[in-house]
Amino acid sequence: MQKMWQGRFSADSSELLEAFNASIEFDKELYRQDIAGSKAHATMLGNSGILDKEQSKEIIRGLDLVKEEIESGKFEFRTEDEDIHMSVEKRLSQIIGKELGGKLHTARSRNDQVALDFRLFCQDETKSIANLVLNLIQTLNNIAKSHKDTLMPGFTHLQHAQPVSLSYHMLAYAFMFKRDFERLLSSHARNNLCPLGSAALAGTPHNINRNEVAAALGFDGITQNAMDSVSDRDFALELLFNISLIFTHASRLCEELILWSSSEFKYINISDTFSTGSSIMPQKKNPDVAELIRGKTGRVYGNLMGLLTVMKGIPLAYNKDMQEDKEGVFDSVKAAKTSLVILSEMLKTTEFLEKNMLKACQSGHLSATDLADYLVREQNVPFREAHFITGRCVAMAESLGKDISELNLEELQSVDKDIKADALEVLKLVNSKEARKSLGGTSNQSVEIQLGQIEEFLQTHLK
Amino acid sequence: MQKMWQGRFSADSSELLEAFNASIEFDKELYRQDIAGSKAHATMLGNSGILDKEQSKEIIRGLDLVKEEIESGKFEFRTEDEDIHMSVEKRLSQIIGKELGGKLHTARSRNDQVALDFRLFCQDETKSIANLVLNLIQTLNNIAKSHKDTLMPGFTHLQHAQPVSLSYHMLAYAFMFKRDFERLLSSHARNNLCPLGSAALAGTPHNINRNEVAAALGFDGITQNAMDSVSDRDFALELLFNISLIFTHASRLCEELILWSSSEFKYINISDTFSTGSSIMPQKKNPDVAELIRGKTGRVYGNLMGLLTVMKGIPLAYNKDMQEDKEGVFDSVKAAKTSLVILSEMLKTTEFLEKNMLKACQSGHLSATDLADYLVREQNVPFREAHFITGRCVAMAESLGKDISELNLEELQSVDKDIKADALEVLKLVNSKEARKSLGGTSNQSVEIQLGQIEEFLQTHLK
Amino acid sequence: MQKMWQGRFSADSSELLEAFNASIEFDKELYRQDIAGSKAHATMLGNSGILDKEQSKEIIRGLDLVKEEIESGKFEFRTEDEDIHMSVEKRLSQIIGKELGGKLHTARSRNDQVALDFRLFCQDETKSIANLVLNLIQTLNNIAKSHKDTLMPGFTHLQHAQPVSLSYHMLAYAFMFKRDFERLLSSHARNNLCPLGSAALAGTPHNINRNEVAAALGFDGITQNAMDSVSDRDFALELLFNISLIFTHASRLCEELILWSSSEFKYINISDTFSTGSSIMPQKKNPDVAELIRGKTGRVYGNLMGLLTVMKGIPLAYNKDMQEDKEGVFDSVKAAKTSLVILSEMLKTTEFLEKNMLKACQSGHLSATDLADYLVREQNVPFREAHFITGRCVAMAESLGKDISELNLEELQSVDKDIKADALEVLKLVNSKEARKSLGGTSNQSVEIQLGQIEEFLQTHLK
Amino acid sequence: MQKMWQGRFSADSSELLEAFNASIEFDKELYRQDIAGSKAHATMLGNSGILDKEQSKEIIRGLDLVKEEIESGKFEFRTEDEDIHMSVEKRLSQIIGKELGGKLHTARSRNDQVALDFRLFCQDETKSIANLVLNLIQTLNNIAKSHKDTLMPGFTHLQHAQPVSLSYHMLAYAFMFKRDFERLLSSHARNNLCPLGSAALAGTPHNINRNEVAAALGFDGITQNAMDSVSDRDFALELLFNISLIFTHASRLCEELILWSSSEFKYINISDTFSTGSSIMPQKKNPDVAELIRGKTGRVYGNLMGLLTVMKGIPLAYNKDMQEDKEGVFDSVKAAKTSLVILSEMLKTTEFLEKNMLKACQSGHLSATDLADYLVREQNVPFREAHFITGRCVAMAESLGKDISELNLEELQSVDKDIKADALEVLKLVNSKEARKSLGGTSNQSVEIQLGQIEEFLQTHLK
Repeated sequence: MQKMWQGRFSADSSELLEAFNASIEFDKELYRQDIAGSKAHATMLGNSGILDKEQSKEIIRGLDLVKEEIESGKFEFRTEDEDIHMSVEKRLSQIIGKELGGKLHTARSRNDQVALDFRLFCQDETKSIANLVLNLIQTLNNIAKSHKDTLMPGFTHLQHAQPVSLSYHMLAYAFMFKRDFERLLSSHARNNLCPLGSAALAGTPHNINRNEVAAALGFDGITQNAMDSVSDRDFALELLFNISLIFTHASRLCEELILWSSSEFKYINISDTFSTGSSIMPQKKNPDVAELIRGKTGRVYGNLMGLLTVMKGIPLAYNKDMQEDKEGVFDSVKAAKTSLVILSEMLKTTEFLEKNMLKACQSGHLSATDLADYLVREQNVPFREAHFITGRCVAMAESLGKDISELNLEELQSVDKDIKADALEVLKLVNSKEARKSLGGTSNQSVEIQLGQIEEFLQTHLK
Repeated sequence: MQKMWQGRFSADSSELLEAFNASIEFDKELYRQDIAGSKAHATMLGNSGILDKEQSKEIIRGLDLVKEEIESGKFEFRTEDEDIHMSVEKRLSQIIGKELGGKLHTARSRNDQVALDFRLFCQDETKSIANLVLNLIQTLNNIAKSHKDTLMPGFTHLQHAQPVSLSYHMLAYAFMFKRDFERLLSSHARNNLCPLGSAALAGTPHNINRNEVAAALGFDGITQNAMDSVSDRDFALELLFNISLIFTHASRLCEELILWSSSEFKYINISDTFSTGSSIMPQKKNPDVAELIRGKTGRVYGNLMGLLTVMKGIPLAYNKDMQEDKEGVFDSVKAAKTSLVILSEMLKTTEFLEKNMLKACQSGHLSATDLADYLVREQNVPFREAHFITGRCVAMAESLGKDISELNLEELQSVDKDIKADALEVLKLVNSKEARKSLGGTSNQSVEIQLGQIEEFLQTHLK
Repeated sequence: MQKMWQGRFSADSSELLEAFNASIEFDKELYRQDIAGSKAHATMLGNSGILDKEQSKEIIRGLDLVKEEIESGKFEFRTEDEDIHMSVEKRLSQIIGKELGGKLHTARSRNDQVALDFRLFCQDETKSIANLVLNLIQTLNNIAKSHKDTLMPGFTHLQHAQPVSLSYHMLAYAFMFKRDFERLLSSHARNNLCPLGSAALAGTPHNINRNEVAAALGFDGITQNAMDSVSDRDFALELLFNISLIFTHASRLCEELILWSSSEFKYINISDTFSTGSSIMPQKKNPDVAELIRGKTGRVYGNLMGLLTVMKGIPLAYNKDMQEDKEGVFDSVKAAKTSLVILSEMLKTTEFLEKNMLKACQSGHLSATDLADYLVREQNVPFREAHFITGRCVAMAESLGKDISELNLEELQSVDKDIKADALEVLKLVNSKEARKSLGGTSNQSVEIQLGQIEEFLQTHLK
Repeated sequence: MQKMWQGRFSADSSELLEAFNASIEFDKELYRQDIAGSKAHATMLGNSGILDKEQSKEIIRGLDLVKEEIESGKFEFRTEDEDIHMSVEKRLSQIIGKELGGKLHTARSRNDQVALDFRLFCQDETKSIANLVLNLIQTLNNIAKSHKDTLMPGFTHLQHAQPVSLSYHMLAYAFMFKRDFERLLSSHARNNLCPLGSAALAGTPHNINRNEVAAALGFDGITQNAMDSVSDRDFALELLFNISLIFTHASRLCEELILWSSSEFKYINISDTFSTGSSIMPQKKNPDVAELIRGKTGRVYGNLMGLLTVMKGIPLAYNKDMQEDKEGVFDSVKAAKTSLVILSEMLKTTEFLEKNMLKACQSGHLSATDLADYLVREQNVPFREAHFITGRCVAMAESLGKDISELNLEELQSVDKDIKADALEVLKLVNSKEARKSLGGTSNQSVEIQLGQIEEFLQTHLK
């Protein structure tokens, strides 16, 4: 086949080069966006008088046929056609004739087709991922609603710190993913501008109507400088970063699911559906899904790093280096979509072993802080001193093989006589949890407020 | 000195550990935020009746004295005091007495102090950097205003593509940095929530007023789940990412400045003030500033990657790993602030060598596309065929040692007789540039619109 | 199909999980290694009396059939078979019967199969890539041999610095890639140890002969601790790093090829075979290959970062996160192999425009250092003062619109009377180049030594 | 002060630029290397007759004085002196006079001084870090020697898999760090070549003796192409990568230490010396050191990524971007040295709670694989079927609330009658461990071999 830009060249491209240069193997994923963009462009060319209305209609008819062929699997993608844009246009020319097919490229360039298709893809996927994030938040919220009275140890440094409710712990993740959702939305709004009509880098002399095309494709407006528009990959980097943060949060949740399903913790039982066994150890039940998601975190970080590095220090406008922008994004998008779905499904079927969580609360002196707080609040002891006294109570409990909540008044007073009978109430685990009534705290009163905030958020965004 | 958490421990920390664990060497940079946070907390404790009003005032007086000591250089930071929070509180206790000093820690924990101080820092610096970005945009805009008629080659693949104006090229960068500004603003708004009052991870039993503290510190509201609040570093990652994108753009601009000041390009002359010489080659004048900024891009990418990796897969809530969050952010912030200032100053004093730019336009057949467009528009030739004809004109020009704009009608028509006399006008460079009147194009008409958009943007944000 | 580890489970895996967990889509690339490993294992089981010799032979016959089926395209890979190991074993069991097929898994586990296959792959590819690096060095060396007298500007800071030969410049890259080769070799030797026989994590009670298997597979020995062996991915990280350094060097070479083929430099003419055109600008000839290689640098860095992050902080021994190790390595290996071949081919057909390089030497006062050196050497002027005098000569030349090599004696002496007539010789470009006779310098004498070193290196490693 | 390269410039550098450009703030760390390099260079200049012997001696005397001043704290580093090279030379000139001081720079350039100093630093630190790695291996080996009979669960997927000894688990890390040591050694050998004498980029006309300088500085030889030598940062990237792998391994060990010191695991007790408490929770004892090391992993990965990105796509030879090479390396080196020391010290004082580890072995059906192996070995059951039978035994044990090792013969035979009385022995934990006698296995016999390998390695490298 004759290459589109063959006119000037004396030698044929080697096959080697063809395979190296071609992007069709991966950018065929953009066929939907490419055809939608071409249809909007053809319509505008017709409306603007650059083409006849009839020509415009014929082109659109042809494009619809090409799309059908692709979706029915009849379309043959070939390396020699280089990319999705050329592939579609070539087939279009076969269908509607070379002369009319060639006219579709009037007033645009491959550079802005690339810019358009890839932006449309990123915008579409930003929305899809945002919806899956919403879904996950809903799952977390449902768990949280059922576990306000499920006591578990709150950890810092993976050490027992203070008793919290499982509800509260799940809400922590709900709020992380809520920020992820907000970032996706904000990115979508910022980048919802149509680059088509930028041509190669400097605009076009044809009397095009960029705003019409933008509106037809669902954009809020147009980009403002064509040289920037064909060189800009900020929208893709934002998506890669937003996915990276989703995985940062998911990897923390998965780490906890892995810990909690260990024999030592036994806080949860991941359903058989979402576990796998061992080829050699018949007793194993492995939290593979959680591990895979944690592992994919590295991969999506790598994709972000990769594209950032590609874009570093390349001059304006388009450079072929930028063809390396797509595969990483496709990969991160796929990782995000599958992981979000499966994480949500897995959580739904996970059994929380409340008794084990409660038992865990009884070691680690979880209410020690409450004693310190009590000394400050009720006995007017300066905090640092109260902290010191409590530390000595903990030491005494340890030496007696007890939890601090199991010390009696006499034992407590042997450390410090400021400790009165009402301290015994304070040391009870459930009281410890219920005492934390500050906004954002773990008491049921505070958790109800948080549940309300998430509910309201979900209602706003789930139509 | 007795460690705050010494009560329970039987052995002393080794010096080794002390130095390894301590963050005071770098987190002293947060003293302003730490003291502001403590003052707001103390005021609230007074207003809420948790402390007497008098106590509250005395604490604030003490904190002001500590701040004075730090700013006058009298304050001695010591490794044994671990971090900025302990250092300030210890000195406060020396000034106002141990008992009252200890009360400041009522209803808060080091975890939320860290969270607060670091968030305040990031929010402050987000604003500072945004202002410096504005500044740079203004510089670019000023250059753009003066160079609407300065012709230069527009490049793709570092090959001459089409003639553009320097104004237009500078505006491409203005729009990139405009997006950077918008990202910073959006991030600031999303994260402008106060974490103080989260306590260690579960809230506090004290009857605190988190909203009062938030308002006093300039936040728009409070964070909603304490376990999330002490574990969240999204705000820092957003800042690291936003700085990375600023450097992506700056590295592209700097690459061009380096190219343009080469002997081969000679498009610009960077002022002596912003150049350096060689210790061994007396004739050298090196664009060191541009190179350093391009180099720092790697560094800020590394800082982003570093913190993402730190946060991967760590369980809730606070873990000591998170102490590794600050130095990378400090480093990226410093890199951004110094680079933005110096880049703007360098551009202001850079001389654009218009004659050399114009001369460069005369090689590379920059108006070839215009001939193709002419054939489509005026002679109704399908684009792909027009492209092919023009390619043959280019080949002919090359064989004659001419630029395509220098071919005469006879020569052009020997390639294709569709080429008429009016094609000669089309091939003129300035006409080529002026023809691109589409929105976002390089014609003066289109550039005026772009200048107006930037002006309006600047007026909105520069008070 | 019944999952191998189904015995204990009450519920079926969901299809969702199956697709998420399965690695067959990508690890089928390891079929060669998997079957080779199984054959060596089966042979050893026969020799050790764990299986009958006949059984062993029958298994091997079956494995050979499976391999044939795969290579002839008859084999159907199915998601439900999870990975290459299960897929091969299942088909084997269909061929030779379930009972005998099942015996192949005696004394090994999937964990060590994964470890073996992936290590074999990395070792194989390390050698392939090393060979391609050798190839590239040979190409560079051939260019270097032909261009000892081709003068070109040597650059620092992209500013003309001193005249060098093209030969010398190409040799700089030859020595970089020589280090890359050495790193690959060193890595291959360090990691050439067989993990098979590690079983799940603790070794096996069967009386196996690990050394026999290692020898059969071309390893130099066996790994020494099974828990380490199933968890270790150092060998893959080394490969990813070594590929990253190859691309670091290639990206620098490609940057120069891109610069040199710009209209401003015009130092080279990349053959049409390795260039592409523009869909809209008929005159363009773009160095796409060089740009793509420069771009792929980001991608391979990202793959390195990705796997490092996957491995961070996961406990011993095998975790499913590690399934994320392969795709990045496959991708980097492919990028390296295609890029090395095409870079070498492109260089072979690149035309070096010697006249343009020479002309470029005549601007930029390239022999200024020689004047300074002359003053030190012949006139006993301290270096720093000589540098200062020469700087003033450069300034005078600039003000006269000349190169420093074009100043006459009178002009030179007006700056400093220490400059004598013999300085005029020193200022000639070719003399400047030939003067640098130190080891590693650009004089032909020094370059001959370097060519000899590369020749010797190539002869040692190219059989 | 007059800048060294001031001759040609008409305007003064701004202070802004001075601070931005200067590297003295961090490269002063290289003073030892810089002065050693200058002394070797001066000696060679004397021996080669380029300077008088007396001049050479006087320069060396002066350099020794400068070193003394720096080490006694008398030396004042100033931003205006740019870098360590200028700072030292300027002070030298004050001491021995400007004329003689200036002669030291004969036949060298700042570019090769930078290359030399930084390479010497990296080589020195490669050795230091290697020694600290040896130290850590020795600590691990000592623990391993004492715990051959300490049973603990071996994990995969953080699920109990098979019983192993603590000795064996510690040896897994010993072998990882052994590879790290080997990588450091290999890198040191590959890069032990002296770049000095490369001059700016093309060698020097002076009749220098590079081999003499190399030998004096402890190098094994000289680099072979000067343009490469001043542009090469492979040696630094290798160090950054080698440190990254050390941290990959250390982060895994630290993850386990954190898990093991949790209330749920309680396998170890980190000594008070290496733990810290909480400002608010008096009962906490946090494994801060392990967390910090795990966290620093992100940081050193970031430094690697940073420098890789800096080096991507910059043309030959030296570019100022490369000044960004040092701080990341300094940071990673510091992180490695402090972390390796403290990790080793912490391990030495960590108490292993053998009873808890043993108790953990009794849940999780750790000897299930042994039953499967028994069925294969003794009853000739195909492995896959044996695996299935064992899975059903596990299910039965779970339903009875027992560990598989607690089932009696009747119960076992109710699952499958192939299970005979000798299976009861096989199911005992200690027998399970001792059965794994394959090379690299966890039996004491195999562990003794591994201990011997580490001992021999240590004896070879610890003088």
